[in-house]
Amino acid sequence: MLYVIGLGLSDETDISVKGLEAVKSCTRVYLEAYTSILMVDKGKLEAFYGKQVIVADREMVESESDKILEGAQEVNVAFLVVGDPYGATTHTDLVIRARELEIPVSVIHNASIMNAIGACGLQLYNFGQTISIVFFTETWRPDSFYERIKENRNLGLHTLCLLDIKVKEQSIENMARGRKIYEPPRYMTIQTAVEQLLEIEENRQENAYTPDTLAIGCARIGTATQQIVSGTLEELRHVDFGGPLHSLVLVGSRMHFLEAEFVKAYAVDKASFEKIAERDYHVKQ
Amino acid sequence: MLYVIGLGLSDETDISVKGLEAVKSCTRVYLEAYTSILMVDKGKLEAFYGKQVIVADREMVESESDKILEGAQEVNVAFLVVGDPYGATTHTDLVIRARELEIPVSVIHNASIMNAIGACGLQLYNFGQTISIVFFTETWRPDSFYERIKENRNLGLHTLCLLDIKVKEQSIENMARGRKIYEPPRYMTIQTAVEQLLEIEENRQENAYTPDTLAIGCARIGTATQQIVSGTLEELRHVDFGGPLHSLVLVGSRMHFLEAEFVKAYAVDKASFEKIAERDYHVKQ
Repeated sequence: MLYVIGLGLSDETDISVKGLEAVKSCTRVYLEAYTSILMVDKGKLEAFYGKQVIVADREMVESESDKILEGAQEVNVAFLVVGDPYGATTHTDLVIRARELEIPVSVIHNASIMNAIGACGLQLYNFGQTISIVFFTETWRPDSFYERIKENRNLGLHTLCLLDIKVKEQSIENMARGRKIYEPPRYMTIQTAVEQLLEIEENRQENAYTPDTLAIGCARIGTATQQIVSGTLEELRHVDFGGPLHSLVLVGSRMHFLEAEFVKAYAVDKASFEKIAERDYHVKQ
Repeated sequence: MLYVIGLGLSDETDISVKGLEAVKSCTRVYLEAYTSILMVDKGKLEAFYGKQVIVADREMVESESDKILEGAQEVNVAFLVVGDPYGATTHTDLVIRARELEIPVSVIHNASIMNAIGACGLQLYNFGQTISIVFFTETWRPDSFYERIKENRNLGLHTLCLLDIKVKEQSIENMARGRKIYEPPRYMTIQTAVEQLLEIEENRQENAYTPDTLAIGCARIGTATQQIVSGTLEELRHVDFGGPLHSLVLVGSRMHFLEAEFVKAYAVDKASFEKIAERDYHVKQ
């Protein structure tokens, strides 16, 4: 059996009781560690499970899936995923490959940012499509998600923006020279995301959003140090949200007054929030 | 402390290890039992927790929240929610009331249908807003969600349809006579949802979808008897999905070929699926 097990959002105790029992039944335990990160290190997981944990990077999952699945017709193998197995990134390749090899697959779900973002006070019902913002480089400033934001905002819907994670990236020089030397991990902050968003709007001028658009910065959702701050993009640009992981929500114009009431509790500046909620979102306080 | 704890999708072992520890620290444990249902009964939860569980119906949560929160400044109180606390239904009233009473609130997340629906093979990224389909009655045939579906489908996005749950409902006669006699619980099936959807389309003729629209019926997601079947709405109308809970996904025209490949594995009729995916969704097989 291949168990694909969601670990949830924060630490080793966010696994479900069912998931933990499954891990304990497994001969090999892999941890997917390139699309998200857990807030605890591998050693803590190993101590908690009483098992060795093999870190599976993108290379391993994409090109050595048969090694991961080896013998799973007879023994149990666990593939651990931060969040939910079907959260932002699905591991359909591995599941499809397991099906081809006639290995039974059992998925054990958990929270992911895709549902836990409800903690910001907006109703999940009122979100449109989710987008991902990637780091700008000197030469590559991708903005294809801008259309998606515009689509959501034209309908008055909220937009969850997932922010880039760079784990095990090589510098261009090291890549060119074939050196397997990796850069330290980088996690996009809400500040960077806001700056990139405003730069894109300035270039495109299609009014998908403005510096006055209300947004909610969400850091370390589901952990003990969770931080939620709402305000205009311009206001959030100056807020220090601390360590990773960060996400950003752009508030849609259909914001209900009950949503507004909840979100206002997190405002950088409640008076400014009220003013803009009334002026641009037609929310009466 | 008020702990608001997600129970996940299936049985007593879907609670997280962290959630279980929190429950065990609580003086009183409430189970929210009107917006969703767990697949196990209260007795099983009580045995698993070693605690009495108080079932909180809508009446209690909406009008006796202070009773639920009583003394939570000093002792721990658990409020258990099927799925995630911020899933389809949020319990913001209770959280706002706790804040007013200066009771610390800790939310322990879990899977909800809003993220576990990824199991159907479609990417969560590509979903638009979520809608709820409620039971038609002789005199009330609500269809306000039709506009929402049209908005999603005009953008090519998938639509998650949550299906009605009627728990502790009174008949009109019993309500009129003030008799607290409740009807047996009812859960909308995928078949009923499809029939209602097609009736609405027939009346409105705005082409938000047709009997040929591809959809995915998802029953008991996250449980051992999970059932996923894809096909046209007309095909799904004739599929028996067994017991509750059921959900339905309308496939948007942006379906990626990798999504199509995964979803096709669940097709009632693979040849029909391929034909329509190519004709109406421009997916080359």
